[in-house]
Amino acid sequence: MKQETVAGIQPLTSFAASLRWQDIPQEVQRKAEDLAVDWFGSVLAGQNARPVRALASFALSQGPRQGDCEVIGQRAGTSPMMAAMANAAASHVAEQDDVHNGSVFHPAAVVFPPALAVAQSIGASGERFMAACVAGYEVGIRVGEFMGRSHYRIFHTTGTVGTIAAAAAVGNLLELTPQQMQHAFGSAGTQAAGLWEFLRTAADSKQLHTAHAASAGLAAAYLARDGFTGAQDIFTGPQGMAAGMSTDADASRLTDGLGTRWATPETSFKWHASCRHTHPAADALLQVLERNQLTPADIARITCHVHQGAIDVLGPVVSPATVHQSKFSMGTVLAIAARFGHAGLTEFDEQFLAPDTVALRDKVHMVLDDEVDTAYPRRWIGKVTVVTTDGRTLHGRVDEPKGDPGNTLSRQEITDKALRLAAYGCDVPEEKVRAAVQGLWDIAKARHVVRLIG
Amino acid sequence: MKQETVAGIQPLTSFAASLRWQDIPQEVQRKAEDLAVDWFGSVLAGQNARPVRALASFALSQGPRQGDCEVIGQRAGTSPMMAAMANAAASHVAEQDDVHNGSVFHPAAVVFPPALAVAQSIGASGERFMAACVAGYEVGIRVGEFMGRSHYRIFHTTGTVGTIAAAAAVGNLLELTPQQMQHAFGSAGTQAAGLWEFLRTAADSKQLHTAHAASAGLAAAYLARDGFTGAQDIFTGPQGMAAGMSTDADASRLTDGLGTRWATPETSFKWHASCRHTHPAADALLQVLERNQLTPADIARITCHVHQGAIDVLGPVVSPATVHQSKFSMGTVLAIAARFGHAGLTEFDEQFLAPDTVALRDKVHMVLDDEVDTAYPRRWIGKVTVVTTDGRTLHGRVDEPKGDPGNTLSRQEITDKALRLAAYGCDVPEEKVRAAVQGLWDIAKARHVVRLIG
Repeated sequence: MKQETVAGIQPLTSFAASLRWQDIPQEVQRKAEDLAVDWFGSVLAGQNARPVRALASFALSQGPRQGDCEVIGQRAGTSPMMAAMANAAASHVAEQDDVHNGSVFHPAAVVFPPALAVAQSIGASGERFMAACVAGYEVGIRVGEFMGRSHYRIFHTTGTVGTIAAAAAVGNLLELTPQQMQHAFGSAGTQAAGLWEFLRTAADSKQLHTAHAASAGLAAAYLARDGFTGAQDIFTGPQGMAAGMSTDADASRLTDGLGTRWATPETSFKWHASCRHTHPAADALLQVLERNQLTPADIARITCHVHQGAIDVLGPVVSPATVHQSKFSMGTVLAIAARFGHAGLTEFDEQFLAPDTVALRDKVHMVLDDEVDTAYPRRWIGKVTVVTTDGRTLHGRVDEPKGDPGNTLSRQEITDKALRLAAYGCDVPEEKVRAAVQGLWDIAKARHVVRLIG
Repeated sequence: MKQETVAGIQPLTSFAASLRWQDIPQEVQRKAEDLAVDWFGSVLAGQNARPVRALASFALSQGPRQGDCEVIGQRAGTSPMMAAMANAAASHVAEQDDVHNGSVFHPAAVVFPPALAVAQSIGASGERFMAACVAGYEVGIRVGEFMGRSHYRIFHTTGTVGTIAAAAAVGNLLELTPQQMQHAFGSAGTQAAGLWEFLRTAADSKQLHTAHAASAGLAAAYLARDGFTGAQDIFTGPQGMAAGMSTDADASRLTDGLGTRWATPETSFKWHASCRHTHPAADALLQVLERNQLTPADIARITCHVHQGAIDVLGPVVSPATVHQSKFSMGTVLAIAARFGHAGLTEFDEQFLAPDTVALRDKVHMVLDDEVDTAYPRRWIGKVTVVTTDGRTLHGRVDEPKGDPGNTLSRQEITDKALRLAAYGCDVPEEKVRAAVQGLWDIAKARHVVRLIG
C-alpha cells in the first residue's frame, strides 16, 4: 500500500459527522439535488424487475407490517433497515444510476436509500437529509479511490465501499460524534462484500450488493450510536479492508482535499442504459456515424480502444443471455447505440437479441489502449476505430462521455430521464411521479422528509 | 489456487440440499446433539454482554413486534432474519462456542441460530432441524478448509464462510433444489465479510460477524427459494471468494470425502473461555504444573511453541484493555490457567488485570514452532517450555487439547458447562434452563421445533 501521505482517518470521521448543509457550496448543493432526482428515476425504473421484487418481498417479510420508512412504489411502510434494503436493490438494476469515474463507484444506490429511510424514521429536515447524502458521497468516493483499481478487478466497489458510504450518510443523520463515526466505519467496513463472479452467468447479485451495502452500513451507524465499537482504522490497518482486498491502495486518497475538493459534483449521470464502461466507446461510435453519415449496414468492424477495467468487466460477456447481461456486452451496447442513436432501457428489452443487433455485436472487438488506460479512472476516454464495408478506416474520440461533469445533463434532461425511467419501470401514475420529482427538486426546503410518493 | 483435484460444486450443492436425518450415521447424530447443547450454553452466556444487547436491540427494532422466531432469553418473538441476527451475536461472545480445527471455523454460532429461526418459522420437525444443522456444519467446514490459511490471516473465517454455512442449513430446511442451493451459495458468498482488524483495539466486531453471517446466509437461502440467482461457482470462479480473499485455496477440499468423511464430529468443544489458539499451550502448561507440583510463583518464564496463526491473531494483543481482548492474550490466558487450574468466564472477568495475572502474563512469550505449524490446522499441538525460578527447564506437551475429538467432553460435562454458562450470563431461571437443555438433548424426536425456553 502506498503510504507517502498517510493521513489518519480522523479528518474523514470528523468531516462525516459534522457536515451540515450550510457548509456545502451552492454548486455542490445544486448537484446533490440533480443526483437525488436522477436517483429517483432509477429506483422507479427498477420496481418491476424480478430480482428487485424478490428482494423487496423478502425485506418486507422480515420487517414490521407498518412503519415510517417508504418502500418506494409500495403503500406499506417498514423499518429503516428493510426500506433501505428494498430501495437500494431497486436503484441499481436499470443501469441508469450515477457513477463517480475516479472511484468506479455508484454512490446514489447506496447513499440515498439508507439516508431516506432514516430521515423518514426520525423526521429529519430536508437540509439534514441532503447534507447526510453529500457526506455519504464525499466519504464513499474517497474510500473507493483509496481501494484502487486492484480492488475493482475482483470486487464490486459499490457493494464493498457502499457499506461505508451508507454508514457515513446515516451516521451524519443520527448525529454521531466523530468517535462514533469511526466505530460505524469499522462496523461497516468489516461487513464490506461484493464479488464480480455473478456476472459470468448473469446472476442477480448486483441488486443484492446494493441492498446489502445500504442495510449493513445503516446497521453499523445505528449500532455505533448505541455504543457498539468497530476497528479504529478499518481502511489502512494491517488486517483491514485494503490489506484484505487491495494491492494498490493509496492512503492519501482517503482525505484528499476534504472540504475543499468536492467529489459529489465529479459524479457522472448515465445516459445510455448500460454498464458505464461501455459509454465512452458508444459515444465515440455515435460521433463516427454522425460525422460520416454512416448506417449500421456500412460497418465491417469496430475496434474499441479501452482501459483494462473494461476488459475485466465486459470481457467475459461474449454472448449475453439476459437483458441485464447484454448491458455488459460491449458489442450489444454499441450495436444498439448504432441502430437507435441511443442505448435506452426499451431498446435493450426489445432488441438485445434481434438479428441486426447480434450481427453488429459480433463485429465489435476490444483492445487495451495505453492512453485510455493511463487516464482511467480519472478520465474515461472513448476511442473507436471503425472499418467500413467499402474499406475506409475511421476514428472516433470523445474525452468526456455524455453525463460526465464537463458534458452534463440539464435539469430538464434529468427530469425527462426520471419520468422516462418511471414510465418504463413502475406502475405509479405519471402525475404522482411528476409531483414527487418536483418535491425532490425542492427537498432541501422541506421542514421534514416525508414520503416521496404521496 | 491449487486445482489438482478440481471438483465442481454440484456434489456440495446436492449434498446440502438433500441431506436428511436418516442419512446421517448415528455417532454423527449424537455429536450433532452434543454440539446443539453446547451451543445453547454459549448463546445464554452471551445474553448480557453489551455488544450483544446492542445488536439484539437493533434487530428487534428492525423486525416485527411479534413472530414465531425466538430471541433466546427474551419473551418477544420476531422474524427469522432478526432472530438469527440476535442469537448469532449472542453465541460468539463468551468464547466458549465450538471450533473445527482444520478450518479454524466456529460452526455453531452461524449454523444453529439461522436454522432454529427458520425451523420455528416453518414448524419443521426436530429431525429436519438437526439434519439442516449437520448440512451447515459439513458444508461450512469444507469451505473453511478450502479457503485456507492465507484467508484466516486477514479474514475471520467464521464471518466469511459463515454465510455459506448458514445458507446451507437454511436452504436444507427450505427444501431448495440443488440448483437453488447453488444460487443460495452464490448470494451468500458474495456477502462474505469479516476482517480481523477489530482485534487491535478490542472492538465488538466479532459478534457483528456472526450476526451478519447468519442473517446474510439466511437471506441468501430465502432469496434462492424465490428465484433470485447467484454466481454459478462462488468458490473457485476467477472473481469468486478464493480469487478475492485467499492465496492458498485448495479446490479439492470443497468436496473432500462428502458423505463418507463426516466433518461434524471433528468439531471440538472449548474448555477454556478464551481464543482457541491459546488452548493447546494452556493445557500443556497445566500438565507441567501438575507433573512438577509447581505454583505460579515458581515460574520465571514460559515459552509457547506455536503455529503462525496463533502469532497472527494473538501477537498484536500485548496489553489487553478489556475482558474480551484478554481472551486473545496468550499471557493472560496462561496466567489465569496457572492460577486457577482452568481459564473460565468468571476468572477472566475478575482477574484479567489482577497484579498476579499481569505479573505472570508478562513472563509468557510465543515462538513459531515448525512441528506445531506443520501439523496445524489439522492438529493443534500444545508445547511449552517453562523455566522455573530455581533454574529448571521443563517441557509440556499435549497432542489434543481438552475438548478435541480424541479428548472430548462427556454429555454430563456438556450439560454442566451449559448450566454454568447460563448461570454466568443470563437471567433465565435455572429450572427453565435445565428443561431447555433436556429438550435439546431430545430435539431430534420433536414433532415440531418450538421455543427452546418455554
